[in-house]
Amino acid sequence: TARSAGTRRRVAELGLADQVLETNAAAVADADLVIVCAPVGACGDIAKEIAPHLKAGAVVSDVGSVKGAIVRDMAPHLPAAVHFVPAHPVAGTEHSGPDAGFAELFVERWCILTPPENTDAKAVERLAAFWRMLGAKVETMPAGHHDLVLAITSHLPHLIAYTIVGTADELGEVTRSEVLKFSAGGFRDFTRIAASDPTMWRDVFLANKDAVLEMLGTFNEDLAQLTRAIRRGDGTALFDHFTRTRAIRRGIVEIGQDSATPDFGRSHAELQPLPRPYAVSDEN
Amino acid sequence: TARSAGTRRRVAELGLADQVLETNAAAVADADLVIVCAPVGACGDIAKEIAPHLKAGAVVSDVGSVKGAIVRDMAPHLPAAVHFVPAHPVAGTEHSGPDAGFAELFVERWCILTPPENTDAKAVERLAAFWRMLGAKVETMPAGHHDLVLAITSHLPHLIAYTIVGTADELGEVTRSEVLKFSAGGFRDFTRIAASDPTMWRDVFLANKDAVLEMLGTFNEDLAQLTRAIRRGDGTALFDHFTRTRAIRRGIVEIGQDSATPDFGRSHAELQPLPRPYAVSDEN
Repeated sequence: TARSAGTRRRVAELGLADQVLETNAAAVADADLVIVCAPVGACGDIAKEIAPHLKAGAVVSDVGSVKGAIVRDMAPHLPAAVHFVPAHPVAGTEHSGPDAGFAELFVERWCILTPPENTDAKAVERLAAFWRMLGAKVETMPAGHHDLVLAITSHLPHLIAYTIVGTADELGEVTRSEVLKFSAGGFRDFTRIAASDPTMWRDVFLANKDAVLEMLGTFNEDLAQLTRAIRRGDGTALFDHFTRTRAIRRGIVEIGQDSATPDFGRSHAELQPLPRPYAVSDEN
Repeated sequence: TARSAGTRRRVAELGLADQVLETNAAAVADADLVIVCAPVGACGDIAKEIAPHLKAGAVVSDVGSVKGAIVRDMAPHLPAAVHFVPAHPVAGTEHSGPDAGFAELFVERWCILTPPENTDAKAVERLAAFWRMLGAKVETMPAGHHDLVLAITSHLPHLIAYTIVGTADELGEVTRSEVLKFSAGGFRDFTRIAASDPTMWRDVFLANKDAVLEMLGTFNEDLAQLTRAIRRGDGTALFDHFTRTRAIRRGIVEIGQDSATPDFGRSHAELQPLPRPYAVSDEN
């Protein structure tokens, strides 16, 4: 099921599901596995809504990018007879909605499970098996540690990207047209991330506030240090830093978490202005 | 020609040039067009070295990412009988060296010319025609304005990417292995830029210090504002900001400066861990 009739219709059109149901209650009835896919801030209410309709022994999970808040908001509503195993597949693109899916989305990506202590081990293993069947690799960790890890690998990068794209849009001396035209110098990479769903990301920052603020503190200290090197003309400090960061890229490519193809494998030959009017679907 | 014998040999092997010469003096002798392709900080010395060997009427240009410093460092050495037309093709990948080139590199990318006042218009037009033949679009602007525009569209994004990748590498609570594994949440996008050539980027920040520090000031103010919204739990401020930045992405795709394909068109199916030992060539 999905909240809006338009999304449910599109799921049916695309043939993504055997049954498309109109209510959350109908969708969870008799289900062995229930996966709540909604912005983090909406999951508590959904848990409350579906709780009376869950089958005993069912596994209840989610795909939220924050896990501490999910446990806090969902767990109190769920009956003792179900197994609650929060999950976060670290995969996706800047698009969302039923049209944004593709078969390889989870292949070789990590899915992190954060089962609360005393969760039934068999239920955790059943959910892990589900994700492995989609091609994902599964890791288990405490919710609090997940939130720290994702604060640096996902939330802070999004916050920084949203910031710099906003900065570029507000400058007096440089026009928006110039920013767009000359974006291939690096800026355009940030705009992809800053085009992600606003509701989802608002909820992430509200729900993982403490870890994000902590990472932001460290980032600010590091930025101040590089700023000082620029101000003082300390080329050695800059060179050493830039050499060190190169090794991280290599590590990510080496373990198969990004492509070795230059420029992400962007198709240079095909990049052409699009015919107007240009329509991007805002799926959510 | 190129500084190192290894690079010259590779250029010859790849058949990139009709003639590969051992010295800068030999390379510029009798040339109608001389393009200095070197880190910004090295261009002044190269101008001094080639000056006595330049043909009268030749066009001398470069491809540096900073233009004010290039004019300051190169112009005083060049004889009055040559036409100096600084240029910056806004194109490239995180790789450099002769193996990193490809035929479409400049197609639909902008090349910015910053001829000093009183430069011969015909010389400027000859250089513009050269870049157009490579597929580029050409724009002319004062060197000082170029340096402001690129500070926001290229230099600041690189500085931020270098910073955050360094931050992630130094955390106590989150291991480097975790950062790499879960980088698909957004972080890996930054690592591509932070894998760019350290010498080139050291020189860019030293040479465009004032404009970079100015943009950094604005960025810091904007980051402080979003940080405050997170700290205060101001979801509306976050949502509004994230909605606005989405439009910028759309504008960049619309004018053909990035792909509309989700995730930069990364090949998801092909992403697999590489066999060890994994070799990335460090071209420069």
